[in-house]
Amino acid sequence: MNVYGDQRSGNCYKVRLTCALLGIAYNWIPIDIRSQDTKTEQFRRINPNGKIPAVELSDGRCLWESNAIINYLARHSSLLPNDAYELAKVQQWQFFEQYSHEPYIAVARYINVYLGRPAEKEAEYEGRQQGGHRALSVMEEQFHTSEFVAGDRMTTADISLYAYTHLADEGGYELERYPAVSSWLDRISRQPRYIGMLD
Amino acid sequence: MNVYGDQRSGNCYKVRLTCALLGIAYNWIPIDIRSQDTKTEQFRRINPNGKIPAVELSDGRCLWESNAIINYLARHSSLLPNDAYELAKVQQWQFFEQYSHEPYIAVARYINVYLGRPAEKEAEYEGRQQGGHRALSVMEEQFHTSEFVAGDRMTTADISLYAYTHLADEGGYELERYPAVSSWLDRISRQPRYIGMLD
Repeated sequence: MNVYGDQRSGNCYKVRLTCALLGIAYNWIPIDIRSQDTKTEQFRRINPNGKIPAVELSDGRCLWESNAIINYLARHSSLLPNDAYELAKVQQWQFFEQYSHEPYIAVARYINVYLGRPAEKEAEYEGRQQGGHRALSVMEEQFHTSEFVAGDRMTTADISLYAYTHLADEGGYELERYPAVSSWLDRISRQPRYIGMLD
Repeated sequence: MNVYGDQRSGNCYKVRLTCALLGIAYNWIPIDIRSQDTKTEQFRRINPNGKIPAVELSDGRCLWESNAIINYLARHSSLLPNDAYELAKVQQWQFFEQYSHEPYIAVARYINVYLGRPAEKEAEYEGRQQGGHRALSVMEEQFHTSEFVAGDRMTTADISLYAYTHLADEGGYELERYPAVSSWLDRISRQPRYIGMLD
């Protein structure tokens, strides 16, 4: 399997972390997130939407969208529940991540870390903060009732949310305000075979 | 099952359309999308993220995020493939919908139809157009190779993408520019037991 990604991207880290936890081997094909690498005709044959991560299976079939990729890789593993309702809860938190979490926390981080928080982006940066805090508050509340986001076992939904939550300080969020989220981050990082983003 | 939703919301329509196609009965509990109904303590017990649609199953368990809900409702139906890779493609297109399609097409529609496209929202409205056209172009290309978005059978991914694509003209998008998308919209609306958004 070929994995196309950028090591500094949280969405790409989801795939790397899933492969590490499950012991899945792959070829890493580096793509610079700030380059035009994803806009080439060649890359658009992998992902017509021009985004990373994307994977090319050994038979040549392709798959993109980080959460769809990790759910595929984790099929038949302990990272996905068998029960239909529990599986739906995993997807619920993954869609929450893509709609209510990533666009605030990852984008604030992007403006801060990649763009250097220029004056012309200040209003956008500030505008992202409120949504990010709302997402972290919803997570904080959930961790008062369960050890992991979709229940008492770790699932791919935890990987999806871990990717940018553990980088939230780079987007200006003080995680000290969210003690249950902080404990959950610790629990994830202590999983067997865990790798950090820059490992 | 109780379904909390607003009839004018495409995300809520996904749930209604799935129930109609599969002959699933439910109680509809109307929530005004522009009111504070989703911010009450009572509603936050259904969905702590304060968004619709959300469902309460007959045993009291809740589920939110439109795409997670319809995948749960369609389990064991012909709207979801059994093959793991094909199922991953369904999810791929649903994550595409929530990240690369809905934030442009649905939000442009919201500014136009709900807010009346006020002058102070004009820049945001214009800003959404490019992303919406990019999403429609990716879909147009896909429909050159398959009848439905994730293959040659209709799946929940078609329902997810149909919801706001069939309203794209209300967001200022001319669907005449996307003939394969337009043909696909026709195919969906001819499915047995199909209902329109205001039916």
